[in-house]
Amino acid sequence: MSESDARERSETTTWDELLELARSDGAERLAQRLEELDESERVHALGRLDAEERSEVLGALPAEDAAELLGHLPDAHAAEAVEELEPSSAAEILDELESDERADLIGQLDRDSAEAILDEAAPETVESVRELLRHAEDSAGGLMITEFVAVPATWTASQLVDHLQEQIERYADYVIQYVYALGSRGELVGVLPLRDLVLARRDRRLESLMLDDPIAVPASAGLPELFELFDRFRFLGIPVVDDSGRMLGVLLREDVDEARVEQAQADELKSRGIVGGEELRTMPLFTRSGRRLSWLSINVVLNIVAASVIAASQETLSAAIALAVFLPIISDMSGCSGNQAVAVSLRELSLGLVRPAELIRVWWQEVSVGLVNGLVLGGLLGAVAWLWKGNVALGAVVAAALALNTLVAVSIGGVIPLALRRYGYDPALASGPILTTITDMCGFFLVLSLATAVLSRIAGA
Amino acid sequence: MSESDARERSETTTWDELLELARSDGAERLAQRLEELDESERVHALGRLDAEERSEVLGALPAEDAAELLGHLPDAHAAEAVEELEPSSAAEILDELESDERADLIGQLDRDSAEAILDEAAPETVESVRELLRHAEDSAGGLMITEFVAVPATWTASQLVDHLQEQIERYADYVIQYVYALGSRGELVGVLPLRDLVLARRDRRLESLMLDDPIAVPASAGLPELFELFDRFRFLGIPVVDDSGRMLGVLLREDVDEARVEQAQADELKSRGIVGGEELRTMPLFTRSGRRLSWLSINVVLNIVAASVIAASQETLSAAIALAVFLPIISDMSGCSGNQAVAVSLRELSLGLVRPAELIRVWWQEVSVGLVNGLVLGGLLGAVAWLWKGNVALGAVVAAALALNTLVAVSIGGVIPLALRRYGYDPALASGPILTTITDMCGFFLVLSLATAVLSRIAGA
Repeated sequence: MSESDARERSETTTWDELLELARSDGAERLAQRLEELDESERVHALGRLDAEERSEVLGALPAEDAAELLGHLPDAHAAEAVEELEPSSAAEILDELESDERADLIGQLDRDSAEAILDEAAPETVESVRELLRHAEDSAGGLMITEFVAVPATWTASQLVDHLQEQIERYADYVIQYVYALGSRGELVGVLPLRDLVLARRDRRLESLMLDDPIAVPASAGLPELFELFDRFRFLGIPVVDDSGRMLGVLLREDVDEARVEQAQADELKSRGIVGGEELRTMPLFTRSGRRLSWLSINVVLNIVAASVIAASQETLSAAIALAVFLPIISDMSGCSGNQAVAVSLRELSLGLVRPAELIRVWWQEVSVGLVNGLVLGGLLGAVAWLWKGNVALGAVVAAALALNTLVAVSIGGVIPLALRRYGYDPALASGPILTTITDMCGFFLVLSLATAVLSRIAGA
Repeated sequence: MSESDARERSETTTWDELLELARSDGAERLAQRLEELDESERVHALGRLDAEERSEVLGALPAEDAAELLGHLPDAHAAEAVEELEPSSAAEILDELESDERADLIGQLDRDSAEAILDEAAPETVESVRELLRHAEDSAGGLMITEFVAVPATWTASQLVDHLQEQIERYADYVIQYVYALGSRGELVGVLPLRDLVLARRDRRLESLMLDDPIAVPASAGLPELFELFDRFRFLGIPVVDDSGRMLGVLLREDVDEARVEQAQADELKSRGIVGGEELRTMPLFTRSGRRLSWLSINVVLNIVAASVIAASQETLSAAIALAVFLPIISDMSGCSGNQAVAVSLRELSLGLVRPAELIRVWWQEVSVGLVNGLVLGGLLGAVAWLWKGNVALGAVVAAALALNTLVAVSIGGVIPLALRRYGYDPALASGPILTTITDMCGFFLVLSLATAVLSRIAGA
């Protein structure tokens, strides 16, 4: 390669490079180049392509590599890319995915694309997908994988080992930590950890080696129950059974942990006002705008309601215009104090230290902190007001208003998440706006009514 | 039991019950009662006791049950409870914990308590703890466990199985998914998944069965690298080695996933202003108050700075007092819009879709949304202002100020997390106050300077 070629090459971006390799039909070289990149470089490069280009790259890869790549993309990108592929190519990739990733992917496609792809996929794939999609996404049935090893409990260890040897191809990609033992009706009767199989005498039957009466979950079990189960036991996987005790799949610890992380990340988005699901900046402008506005429009209405308190006290404000400087300070500080209380309540709820019904106890614990902090902050701000305008009444009004509003804010902030949880609402989502609206109104009201009460002393400030 | 006894009993709270059992020397019954409770009931009941009482319950249990219980308590409660115990009792419990939990616990005790307990603990325990504590808490060395099976690569499968059988007691609580093969200098040379051991011919040497050149991490590897590694590979555990390739421990996927969840939870606390670490309401009042104030005091200063913009425009405000109603609305709405942009940036940073250096690109993607949303919100609020006071100039000022400030807010909100990450600061922590201070000042400035520009038309509103 000449020097100028080399210079030109180094200026080609990674994603352009991938696209070129995909188009030039260099499937091997493309797979190789992807392998050289680390995880974040891959995600970043593919994120810089648009949906069609991403599809091209995916379609150019061997099905196995494409499946691996797909697993690393954000859900929205993966779904888009697959929808752009020919159904037969997509089906090949689908066959290579693990059962739970497969079901997740199909579940995100529009109906027509999904059906077109399933038409081309292998029968076991289709069966597995339909089974998993029967269940809610966030339940044991939705999170489980359908790849597991289950054999009759009457088999000997020797027969089991032979079976594993024979089926070595089929089980090659399985995550096997346990072998499940079935009874005569095909129901789950025991679990044999792999380690115990290693140490077992080969002529022993599984029924004498296995752990009887194993822990299992119904397919309908929801996330809270699953978190609890995996917190309590060290298992790497728990069998999922139907009503008659037959195994449907295995729920892996790592998938439950992934659900935990995803929930925390979704809460983080919601608490900052991204409420319509994930937003990626590659999404269309009006989708992003519309979703953000759904949250902003609620907030603007709440803000107008809160500010109406100020509108009702315009004479007082006219008389002591300095108050207008302190209104935003007091409303913001109350929001801060209140949000700290919200954070602690959410945390204690998730740890199980507090229960939704324990409103009084939480309120009492917040009142003490609210008193101390209210006095400190109120004193501070009151002093600033006094120093600025030389008016003691102004300082006193500001101090009292901030102190009292801090008390109100931590009380509400501490209690709102519990009340929301108790009535089945999402505390992470709603606590913020409810809190700020109430504390804003309260703060404005306190400042302006206290000021009105001492209007003669405060006028002209 | 008489009827009145039964009634009295049902009114005893769970935690009082546990305390009674602990005091009456009913160790078996206490352990049994705890077993009957589900995870959240246990955490809740123990959370209702004070530190000394919790210690009593812990001390009354057999060491193994106490260790299990300890693993389920929040870190702060666990540390307090252990500090209250006699060092010899604490040491017994410590010996029962798994190596990483052990090290975490010791790391949280004050130095004197820690040393007193280690003096009483078994030599292997002490060695393991000191090894783990040599490393940063959030590194491979800090998260790893020291329980693993490593044998010479020259052994046969048969010798390995015999060894596992002999050591069955010692390895009983180990999480064994892989056996590690060592070279002549004791360095890691291969990994043998348990499944392959099951299928192996017993006379084969490990060196012919194992996976050569295994993936391993240095003890110093930090969380980002570890997340990447476990995202890339499906392993349940990765060996941790020192500079000369000798094994120090095993890093389990479940522990890395736990670190991921903890990081998300810590971010959630920080983004709401709980910045001094976890706050539990059982902590002393002045600890809670002081920590919250460390955040609040910064915010009050920033708020005063922002409000000084209003102070500088008191004449305009006097002339059109209605503006005072819209100042808090505009400042709050800009905060909302800005926080949405912050959320998306944090998310894209964590997904790897965007890199800290890509400020211009992100800004450009936010500007478009900011324009659309700014026009909608500005139009809405301007209409409200106009309808309220019948003053077109007021409506125009309010609309323009909110539209422009929305644009400012999403620009800053989108870009700040990237800039903070780039310069090594924590984006989840600082984005909030920086954003709101700048957008508040900007919003106040826009309203008041635009109003001043059209003062003749707006006066009297």
